[in-house]
Amino acid sequence: MVGLPARGKSLIATKVVRYLHWLSITAKTFNVGQYRRTATPTPSADFFDTTNPEGERLRRAAAEAAVNDMCKWFRDGKGLVAILDATNSSKTRRKWIQERCQAENIETLFVESKCDDEDIIMQNILDVKTTSPDYAGQDPELAAADFRNRIRNYEKVYETIDETNERNLTYVKLIDVGKQVIINQIKDYLQSRVVYYLMNLHIKPRSIWLSRHGESQYNLTGQIGGDASLSDRGELYARKLPELVQQSVGDGRKLTVWTSTLKRTIQTARFLEFEKLEWKALDELDSGVCDGLTYGQIEEKYPDDFAQRDEDKYNYRYLGGESYRDVVIRLEPIIMELERSENILIVTHQAILRCIYAYFMNVPQERSPWMEVPLHTLIKLTPKAYATMEERLKADIPAVSTFREKGSRAKHQEAQEAAQEAHDKQKA
Amino acid sequence: MVGLPARGKSLIATKVVRYLHWLSITAKTFNVGQYRRTATPTPSADFFDTTNPEGERLRRAAAEAAVNDMCKWFRDGKGLVAILDATNSSKTRRKWIQERCQAENIETLFVESKCDDEDIIMQNILDVKTTSPDYAGQDPELAAADFRNRIRNYEKVYETIDETNERNLTYVKLIDVGKQVIINQIKDYLQSRVVYYLMNLHIKPRSIWLSRHGESQYNLTGQIGGDASLSDRGELYARKLPELVQQSVGDGRKLTVWTSTLKRTIQTARFLEFEKLEWKALDELDSGVCDGLTYGQIEEKYPDDFAQRDEDKYNYRYLGGESYRDVVIRLEPIIMELERSENILIVTHQAILRCIYAYFMNVPQERSPWMEVPLHTLIKLTPKAYATMEERLKADIPAVSTFREKGSRAKHQEAQEAAQEAHDKQKA
Repeated sequence: MVGLPARGKSLIATKVVRYLHWLSITAKTFNVGQYRRTATPTPSADFFDTTNPEGERLRRAAAEAAVNDMCKWFRDGKGLVAILDATNSSKTRRKWIQERCQAENIETLFVESKCDDEDIIMQNILDVKTTSPDYAGQDPELAAADFRNRIRNYEKVYETIDETNERNLTYVKLIDVGKQVIINQIKDYLQSRVVYYLMNLHIKPRSIWLSRHGESQYNLTGQIGGDASLSDRGELYARKLPELVQQSVGDGRKLTVWTSTLKRTIQTARFLEFEKLEWKALDELDSGVCDGLTYGQIEEKYPDDFAQRDEDKYNYRYLGGESYRDVVIRLEPIIMELERSENILIVTHQAILRCIYAYFMNVPQERSPWMEVPLHTLIKLTPKAYATMEERLKADIPAVSTFREKGSRAKHQEAQEAAQEAHDKQKA
Repeated sequence: MVGLPARGKSLIATKVVRYLHWLSITAKTFNVGQYRRTATPTPSADFFDTTNPEGERLRRAAAEAAVNDMCKWFRDGKGLVAILDATNSSKTRRKWIQERCQAENIETLFVESKCDDEDIIMQNILDVKTTSPDYAGQDPELAAADFRNRIRNYEKVYETIDETNERNLTYVKLIDVGKQVIINQIKDYLQSRVVYYLMNLHIKPRSIWLSRHGESQYNLTGQIGGDASLSDRGELYARKLPELVQQSVGDGRKLTVWTSTLKRTIQTARFLEFEKLEWKALDELDSGVCDGLTYGQIEEKYPDDFAQRDEDKYNYRYLGGESYRDVVIRLEPIIMELERSENILIVTHQAILRCIYAYFMNVPQERSPWMEVPLHTLIKLTPKAYATMEERLKADIPAVSTFREKGSRAKHQEAQEAAQEAHDKQKA
């Protein structure tokens, strides 16, 4: 990373790490500030004055320690992408990093966040004064004032990446959070993916709403996959959804509704008076030969597969179908589009919702396929600087549970007879 | 487009139009040079001297005619993306275009190609002198000299997009064919897709080889889909492929082999001594409920669907499966990666190969699903400035034809019994 303090460097680093983890690429941030804090826990702005030789020496030592650990991390084969989170604000410092990496055969991509928008900087300063460990326990006003002085000290020596003298570096310069982007000497696929991701980020406040389709006929019979219509209770949820959304979204806020191409999501969204978009990429995980079967039938017909799936549900690919890993790959354009967009409501399926949720909430792979996402519930996610806030709104409409715990054929199956009875009664 | 002559503007325009068409987005190039040529078919360099008022007037008239037609094209709802292919090399001209478009509610994206690499420019000049209608029938040496003078006249007034004064424009500046890319004020999804595509283009000479998997057990029985192994003849093709590739690629050239995740492509590629990559996105078109059936059985079980598919094969989606349109969407990352890459050999399936081929050869949607791509044949595609060259190399190994003509259940089925016999003999 390159840039003055309060330019969102750590935020960008956090998002990139989360995105890479979601794509199964091991990534880790090395934050030079944390190294510096072990020697100097709560420095004042003077510490960052370049004419202060002791401060200069300690800050240099922190950078060296971070880079050493980072190189070791690569050497030990611990991961694929490391982010060196620091200001790295002089040409000399960048040259040093570039040479250290080159010696270790590590490709570099310098990501500079350059921002002169005072509103954004002030917002970042306000975040920092309340969250940075550098100011733990201090008066927020004094902290903000000190932090502004620290920035001024950095400004004295700050050199933006030079488009002429540093033209041999691979870099991306993000100016005013994506208003302008300069991309230089991108060399490989991973760099191009990260750059495309960075291009699409914005920081306008917004929320994302997630809902599964209403209970379907297949949910009642305990079958997976297929393209069934809603059950009567699912239909009730569809009719209730506009009210639920209104309650969560508030008045006058515009949003766009995304559904899959399957009947149950389109039916669920059909009473919402917003623009709608159908995405094939939002279709349920393809269960291949098991499509249309119940978990009980799968266990009977494909006992080995059933057990295998429990062992590593993330990687298990249904015969002729998909794994969670496959789903993540096809969801990537959706995530990219979500990053670009503002308020979006997604009506989709259990496995798909788990994957999208895992991206925003940073859920590890081994856990995400086992998350319980109940039917007839609206989830609201609001991305904040370092985490995503979550609210859940339940519609008071009963539904079968389609959640199956590891090693069981569980609720889904047990509820089946009861549900079938209820269904038969409704029909009668 | 923005840029001096011989900077690859028309080449970029051609590629973007081809890419958009492939994605079912109607796009059209309005080439100002063509408008100018109706008044002045073979102008000399003097015509482009800015101190020549008559030349200036005629060139201005050509630009106006092109912009008028472009606006009319939009107004008539003829398409989504128009490319105004001209030098548009002054701020005044760009401001005029911007205002004209704004008045018509047309979003603008200025794409500047800036190139100071003499080798690239000379190559472009050589291309132009042999292909431009401006120099039809003229001595190539004189044409090149005149064209260099024309460029000099443009250079006098050329203003690159100004990062300060023109910062309100949405633009992308491609410097030395992708070495550096500057992106400004990108506003919507389509712009972001086009910019990402432009970022990935390169002009290093290379080829792409395409092959279907060797004949499979399912090909013999006439079944579609599935995950069958190679037949004995398919196995022969796999063993022959390295020789075929060597013959086409030549000595010492490195390439990377991409296969799908299905057995028949992996088996086909397994004797090739190159780096290999498996892509789920290269798996065969998912035929849903028809997976494992023969065309005869499909016709019997789903007669309406069978007829529907013939009527609009590109858009027909198998029940629980995919359409060609769906395949194109999932192939987009493959195309992007192909644009970034150099020499690639893809071993994949009939429908997938048709879609990739259609991209490079600009085959219209309604025709691409009906193209015949025989088994046991290596196709070599070499992208050139305005077209892609094709060579086909047949391995002398017989195989069933899996090609089905519109309205028939054809060769595939008819050959079935004969093939089955042959197969049984081999096994015996």
